[in-house]
Amino acid sequence: MINCIFAQIGTMSYLPGSNQDTIVALATPQGSGALGIIRVSGQDTFAIVNELFTAKNLSNQKTHTLHFGILEYEGEIIDEVVLSLFRNPRSYTGEDVIEISCHGSSYIQQRLLQVLIQLGARMAHPGEFTERAFFNGKMDLTQAEAVADLIASNSKAAQQTALKQLRGGFSEDLQKLREELIHFAALIELELDFSEEDVEFVDRTQFMRLIAAIKSATQQLIDSFRLGNVIKNGVRVAIIGRPNAGKSTLLNALLNEQRAIVSDIAGTTRDTIEETLNINGSLFRLIDTAGIREHSSDHIENLGIERSKANAEQSHIILYLIDSTDKEDSELDWLAPYKDKTIRVLNKVDVTIVQQEACVAEDQTIKISAKQKLGIEALKQLMYQKVIGTELQTENTIVTNARHHGILLKIAESLDDIETGMENQVTGDLLAIDIRSCLHYLGEISGKVEHDRDILGTIFGKFCIGK
Amino acid sequence: MINCIFAQIGTMSYLPGSNQDTIVALATPQGSGALGIIRVSGQDTFAIVNELFTAKNLSNQKTHTLHFGILEYEGEIIDEVVLSLFRNPRSYTGEDVIEISCHGSSYIQQRLLQVLIQLGARMAHPGEFTERAFFNGKMDLTQAEAVADLIASNSKAAQQTALKQLRGGFSEDLQKLREELIHFAALIELELDFSEEDVEFVDRTQFMRLIAAIKSATQQLIDSFRLGNVIKNGVRVAIIGRPNAGKSTLLNALLNEQRAIVSDIAGTTRDTIEETLNINGSLFRLIDTAGIREHSSDHIENLGIERSKANAEQSHIILYLIDSTDKEDSELDWLAPYKDKTIRVLNKVDVTIVQQEACVAEDQTIKISAKQKLGIEALKQLMYQKVIGTELQTENTIVTNARHHGILLKIAESLDDIETGMENQVTGDLLAIDIRSCLHYLGEISGKVEHDRDILGTIFGKFCIGK
Repeated sequence: MINCIFAQIGTMSYLPGSNQDTIVALATPQGSGALGIIRVSGQDTFAIVNELFTAKNLSNQKTHTLHFGILEYEGEIIDEVVLSLFRNPRSYTGEDVIEISCHGSSYIQQRLLQVLIQLGARMAHPGEFTERAFFNGKMDLTQAEAVADLIASNSKAAQQTALKQLRGGFSEDLQKLREELIHFAALIELELDFSEEDVEFVDRTQFMRLIAAIKSATQQLIDSFRLGNVIKNGVRVAIIGRPNAGKSTLLNALLNEQRAIVSDIAGTTRDTIEETLNINGSLFRLIDTAGIREHSSDHIENLGIERSKANAEQSHIILYLIDSTDKEDSELDWLAPYKDKTIRVLNKVDVTIVQQEACVAEDQTIKISAKQKLGIEALKQLMYQKVIGTELQTENTIVTNARHHGILLKIAESLDDIETGMENQVTGDLLAIDIRSCLHYLGEISGKVEHDRDILGTIFGKFCIGK
Repeated sequence: MINCIFAQIGTMSYLPGSNQDTIVALATPQGSGALGIIRVSGQDTFAIVNELFTAKNLSNQKTHTLHFGILEYEGEIIDEVVLSLFRNPRSYTGEDVIEISCHGSSYIQQRLLQVLIQLGARMAHPGEFTERAFFNGKMDLTQAEAVADLIASNSKAAQQTALKQLRGGFSEDLQKLREELIHFAALIELELDFSEEDVEFVDRTQFMRLIAAIKSATQQLIDSFRLGNVIKNGVRVAIIGRPNAGKSTLLNALLNEQRAIVSDIAGTTRDTIEETLNINGSLFRLIDTAGIREHSSDHIENLGIERSKANAEQSHIILYLIDSTDKEDSELDWLAPYKDKTIRVLNKVDVTIVQQEACVAEDQTIKISAKQKLGIEALKQLMYQKVIGTELQTENTIVTNARHHGILLKIAESLDDIETGMENQVTGDLLAIDIRSCLHYLGEISGKVEHDRDILGTIFGKFCIGK
C-alpha cells in the first residue's frame, strides 16, 4: 500500500524515447542582423556539427568553450562561425548542445538548417528545447512556463514576476508543503494497513495545522492572480467622458513623456487597444471607449453607451473624465455599478486651483488640467495605487499563469474536502482519497506528476521556435 | 628619399583615440525570439559586465569560455544569461569582447542596453564593431566590406563570392603585386638620388613584365565586375510579349518549383520587382514589364511600349515571349537593338514537337509550352548560361563591389600612364609619380593607405547595427 501510493505521488522521471533524436532550430528572430544563432541539441549534436567544422575535432573539446572556424559541407563553405559547446548535462536542455553563431543572413541560416537536417538532425517543434529541459529535470513546469512569459514580457513588472518564477518562485514553497503532506499521507495509508489494530500514526492536530498552512499559502496565491493577470496582460483602462471633456488631450498628456520601451514592441493589437502606457514599470492599456458621442440619432448614441458599458465592465480602471467648466456635464447613471473602479477626473480645472490643491485625489476624485499637463503624474500614481498598489513591492509571490490559478482552485477545493472529512471524522480510506487528490494537484503545478501529453503540448506549443 | 616614399606607401596603423571607449549593441534582429545577443567591445568590457554578473569574477576567466549566471543591477535581476568571453586580441574586433546571450524579449534587451550604458558603455554606430576589426588589423577593408555583403546575401552565388572575399579573396593577390611594385618603386627612387651618376638599379624588362602582370590581373578583375554586380544584385529579366502570349503562365511555370529560400527574405522591393527566382544558386529578378497591352488608345499603348523599352534597356536578359499559334504575333522592331541579350521564347508549341526537339535552344530561340510546363528547365538553364555561364564555376575571383571596381579602373589608368611613360622614356621623377599613384590605388582597395574618414564612414555606415 505504501509502495503503491508513493509510486503514484512520487517524483516521476520522463525519458520518452522520441526525445533522443537531435533537434535544430534558429533561436534568434527572423530577419537581417549582425548575428544569428542556430541551436542544436541531442545525442548526435557533436557528431553532426563535427562533420561540418574543419578547424578542430570538437569531440576533444571541453564544455563551455568557444571555437572559431569554418563550416563546410561537401566542399561548399557555408560560413565562418563561432561555436558554443555545452556538454550534457550542463546545458539548457540537459543534452549535448551546440549553438552556432553565424552571420545574420537568412540565406546562410536556411542553408545551415538544411545541411544540419541532411546530416541527421530534425527541425525542433516550438518549445521543444524547453520541453527537453523539463523532461531532463533541468527545470520544473512552472519554470518552463516562466521562460515563455519572460520572452513575452514587455514591462518591468511582467519581467520581474517571470524571472522570479523562473528562479524557483512559488513552486518551491508548494513543493515543501507537498513533501510534508506526502509524509502524512504515507502514515495515514500505514494506519489503513493496520486498521484492525486501531493505531494512530498521524498526529491529527499536526496534520490539521499542515492542512491549514497549505490552505493559507494556496489562498494567498489564488488572491495574487488578480494582480498577476494584470501584470502579465496589462491594466485595462477605459477613458469615458463626453467628447468635449478633453479625452484626447488627456490621452496625449498621459502618453506624452514615455512612449519609450513599450511602444516599439510588435504585436500590440491595434484593433482594440488605443495606446499602452508604462507606469512605474507596469503596463497600462488605454482602451478606446468610442466615447459617448453626442450623435444626432438617439439610436446611435445608445450604441455608443452600450459599447462604453462593455468596455467599463471589462476594465480594471475607469477614468471618468468630467469637464469641470461645463455645468451640464453631470454624473452618468450607468457608471454607478462600477463605482469601486472608477476614478473621477475633473478636467479643465483652473490652473491656480490645481497648483494650490496639488492635484490631491480625494474620494477617488482628482482635479487636473490635461491641457496644462497639471496633475497628470498624480493621476498616474492614483491609477497605479488603485490596481497595483504596494503588493508588487513586497516579496509576496504572484501567480500570473491561468493554468496555475486553475490548479490552485482545485487544491483549495481538495483541502476543504480534507478539512470537512476530518471534522466529520470520516474513515482513513476516504481521507486518503482526498489527500491523494490534493497531492496530485500540488504535483501538477510543477509537473511532478505525469501529465497528459495534450496538456504539455498546449504549454510548449505556445513557445516560439528555437526555445 | 627612400624613407619618404616608404612612409607614404607603407602599411599604416590606425589607432584613433576615440576607439578606446566601450561600445554596445544588440547584434541579433529586433523582435521576439528564443535568444538575443548583446555585444560589448572595448577596454572596459570585462569591468562593466563584471559589475552585473554575480556568479563569478570574470576577470579570472579565460578567453573563449562560456559562463551561465544572473545579471543584476542595483538589486534588480535583469536576466539569466550565458556570457561568451573573447579576450583581446582573439576576438572579432581585436578588443575585449563579451557577447551576452539573453532571453529574446525586447524589454529585457532594452533594459540591458540601458544598464550597460549607465555603467559607461555607449551605443555602437552601425558597422562600428567591424570598423574596429579593420582598425585593429583583424581584417582589411575588402574583408570588412565582405561582412556586410555576406549578411545581405540572399543566394548561393552572392554568399559564396562574399565568403571568398571575406577569406582573403583578390586583395591578397593584389597585395603581392603591390609589394613587388613597391620594390621597383624604391629602386627607381634610388636611381633619382644617384641621377647624376647615370646608374640603373631597375631592370626595365623585369619592370615592364611586372606592370603587364598587374595590368592583366586588374583587367580580369574589372571584367569580372559585370558578373559580380549581377551576382550581388541579381540578374534582371524582362519578360516581354503580347498579353495573349502567355506571360503569366510562363511566370508561374518559372516560379512553380522553387519559391524556397529566396521568397521569405524581407525587403524585396515589391514596387518594381515582380518575383525572384533562384537558378543554380543565382538570383534572377523577373521584372514586371507592364506588358505590351492592346489598349484601345494608341497613346496609352505607346506609354506601355516606352515602359517596356526602359525595362529592356536596364535588364540583363529579355525573354521575348511569342505565341507560336498566333500568326500575327510577329517580331517587335524596337527589340532589335537588344538582340544580344534577347531569348526568343516560342510558347504554345505543340506538345509532341517540344518533346521531340527536347526544347533545344538554337540561335537564342527556345520552344516551350508554359501551360504543359515543357521546356521550362531548359529555358532556365539557357538564362543561366547567357549571363552567369561557367565563369562562376571556375576559381576566378569576382569583384562584386562598386568601390573596388572604381578603384580598379583608376589602377588600370595609372598602369597605362606608366607604360606610356616608359615607351616615351620619361625621366625617373615623372615615372615615380605615376608609380606612386598606382601604389596608392592598389593600397586603397584593402585599406593599406590612409582613408578619408568620410569614405570609411560611407563604407561602415551601410552596416547594420551590432556588426
